[in-house]
Amino acid sequence: MHDVLQAKPTLETADIAHYMQQLGQSAKAATRVLAHSPTVLKNQALRDIHAALAASRDIILAANAQDMQQGRNSNLETALLDRLELTPARFDGMLQGLHDVIALPDPIGAITDLTYRPSGIQLGKMRVPLGVVGMIYESRPNVTLEAASLAIKSGNAIILRGGSEAFFSNQAIAGCVQTGLKQAGLPETAVQLIQTTNRAAVGELITLVDYVDIIVPRGGRSLIERILREARIPVIKHLDGNCHTFVEKQADLTKAYDICLNAKTHRYGVCNAMETLLIEAAIANEFLPKMAALFLQKGVELRGCPEVCALVAEAKPATEQDWHEEYLAPVLAVKIVCGIDEAITHINHYGSHHTDVILTENYALARQFLAEVDSSSVMVNASSRFADGFEYGLGAEIGISTDKIHARGPVGLEGLTSQKWIVLGSGQIRA
Amino acid sequence: MHDVLQAKPTLETADIAHYMQQLGQSAKAATRVLAHSPTVLKNQALRDIHAALAASRDIILAANAQDMQQGRNSNLETALLDRLELTPARFDGMLQGLHDVIALPDPIGAITDLTYRPSGIQLGKMRVPLGVVGMIYESRPNVTLEAASLAIKSGNAIILRGGSEAFFSNQAIAGCVQTGLKQAGLPETAVQLIQTTNRAAVGELITLVDYVDIIVPRGGRSLIERILREARIPVIKHLDGNCHTFVEKQADLTKAYDICLNAKTHRYGVCNAMETLLIEAAIANEFLPKMAALFLQKGVELRGCPEVCALVAEAKPATEQDWHEEYLAPVLAVKIVCGIDEAITHINHYGSHHTDVILTENYALARQFLAEVDSSSVMVNASSRFADGFEYGLGAEIGISTDKIHARGPVGLEGLTSQKWIVLGSGQIRA
Repeated sequence: MHDVLQAKPTLETADIAHYMQQLGQSAKAATRVLAHSPTVLKNQALRDIHAALAASRDIILAANAQDMQQGRNSNLETALLDRLELTPARFDGMLQGLHDVIALPDPIGAITDLTYRPSGIQLGKMRVPLGVVGMIYESRPNVTLEAASLAIKSGNAIILRGGSEAFFSNQAIAGCVQTGLKQAGLPETAVQLIQTTNRAAVGELITLVDYVDIIVPRGGRSLIERILREARIPVIKHLDGNCHTFVEKQADLTKAYDICLNAKTHRYGVCNAMETLLIEAAIANEFLPKMAALFLQKGVELRGCPEVCALVAEAKPATEQDWHEEYLAPVLAVKIVCGIDEAITHINHYGSHHTDVILTENYALARQFLAEVDSSSVMVNASSRFADGFEYGLGAEIGISTDKIHARGPVGLEGLTSQKWIVLGSGQIRA
Repeated sequence: MHDVLQAKPTLETADIAHYMQQLGQSAKAATRVLAHSPTVLKNQALRDIHAALAASRDIILAANAQDMQQGRNSNLETALLDRLELTPARFDGMLQGLHDVIALPDPIGAITDLTYRPSGIQLGKMRVPLGVVGMIYESRPNVTLEAASLAIKSGNAIILRGGSEAFFSNQAIAGCVQTGLKQAGLPETAVQLIQTTNRAAVGELITLVDYVDIIVPRGGRSLIERILREARIPVIKHLDGNCHTFVEKQADLTKAYDICLNAKTHRYGVCNAMETLLIEAAIANEFLPKMAALFLQKGVELRGCPEVCALVAEAKPATEQDWHEEYLAPVLAVKIVCGIDEAITHINHYGSHHTDVILTENYALARQFLAEVDSSSVMVNASSRFADGFEYGLGAEIGISTDKIHARGPVGLEGLTSQKWIVLGSGQIRA
């Protein structure tokens, strides 16, 4: 294991294409075994990975300390350093997440909707793996294990491209994953970590049309946009989370104060945090001043429309850009709207179709909001912070899709699968 | 309606980009109505379209006759002319297909999997339209109506780009569709036919990222490959149908003769026709000579491996290319294999992952074939010709996907939809 503490290998760009082709080929070869491995074998591999990680705890934490040191030396920004750090608690949480994935039902092979057609054939659908997943992510080393464990459980192979800032941590974790796969008798190449920090490797990965079936990028907007431009393979993309909460005039305000405070201040740097608060005019006088005071106590900067600024002295005037903004910071845009239609129009226009919430006790308006807001998660009387693979019971999440195609919202095991049609006949021919 | 008989408008390429932007904008605007139109209204529009088509029967058939005449003048190949022709019988079949779509359940708004999470939130999924569909197809004018009716029923808007050879037919049919939409009080721009035969329009359509949510191409390989290269929008692609039938040694041979004959000779020019026949060695002497005789009676040319040529004098030696070939013609590649493993390996390597069939009475081998063949339709003891949206009960099909992402195999209403998460809470906040 100590080889992870060696210097980062730096492949010549000229060699990258050949290297990535090799990774693709061996990943594809691994799928031929993984796709048809029984649940008990896949779970055994995950348990062996758990054991290997537990046994290498000190080495992994040392590798992470090395990444943290290099990060500080290269003045990595604090938010990234925070995501990069593998505290003992986070390490234990990572291992617990592995237990959660082991406990999930195996989606592969499930046959549904078996029905007889007038022709006499029996038609159904069987769930199957996608094949090879290309995962591109930054900083958080635990993503290495989450992605690997979901890929194994769903019978896929995965090629991992972690951020260079987490190079040693990812090496150490991926090494344990391959040890576990080997012990269980599954191909180590089911999970491969790209062994170079050369950026050209990403360009190769997202164009390996012969070997890679889907690309899952997790990272900043510039990374995602580059991948969308250059990828020749389907991408499950996760763009901004500009999440709204609309406080309708029939909302239970005692709930509203708690939910809005939780949605904004529970964590600032996450994609499911509230970035814009919409308040119906009829209750603004009653609700806004007290709500604003709670935010200001927490040190949240408020940027409001003129009506908001008239009610809250501390609020700064919001610009057009504020309605588009994903702050990921203690800043909140606040707008007073005349009713649900204006709220829905605002959300569908300025929002990022991630997660949006209505607070109301009115049955018809709750149904209208659920139907008409075009977002991957639409909620009634709950904090937007619940839009999360763990809270949704997916065990782990490979990402959160802001796309409509294939997978939407938090993506777990099922997002890494597809369904094929099966036909059970008894000699039928087409008339 | 007679304006459809005017000459084809030829927009300057310079104007195409602006023209396509307009189509995209008005399609997007139409989705805001379509997405939330009740089932009864969408069905009324489909019935009004049916009435408009019935009333314009003569005009449509005249427009088609005009396309056919131009096709003959420009020496369009016979296969294309056949697909282009709208016989009275095909016209009636087209209207019947509309009834089938009206009879389909409306997928939009369906809420499934509503379950309580430990946090107390109730989590479920709601089915929603994709938005705007870009449909690119050739010759068959009835695709215009099939695609339009599926888009309307699933609450989507659609932009249609038919082949120039079917220009007048498509104009006449699309005109009736818009008449029906208008009569029902739905936006005519829910279904728009591109009013120019300028090829630049396709390049614009597949890059309208702000307005178009998915591209569905139906046509020849060169068209599909151009779209895959240039599209900046997700594509549900339909590539080759190189379909196999494997006659396993425990097959019921009386069924096998009928099924193989049906799979190859029921229709030659279709994607779900058998192109390669695999026969287990143990039964080759008994099965192949009689099967070959039946094919030769029908005028099917046989291209075989050496073992096949040794048993069938009329068979020509197959080249490596023959195993890859989608003949769409009375030609069949025939190979003798030593067993199911060789058959599956051959199919997964040379096949196009469209539709593949095993003929066997052996339970374990049937299950193995179903699990291990990586195709959008996998069948036991039935003709590959059943791989079809109508036979699968989809009412109509927008296409047959050879992709694994989003939709696989025949794509009907559900392939034009997505699911969003909904959360019903009662004041929950994230701990």
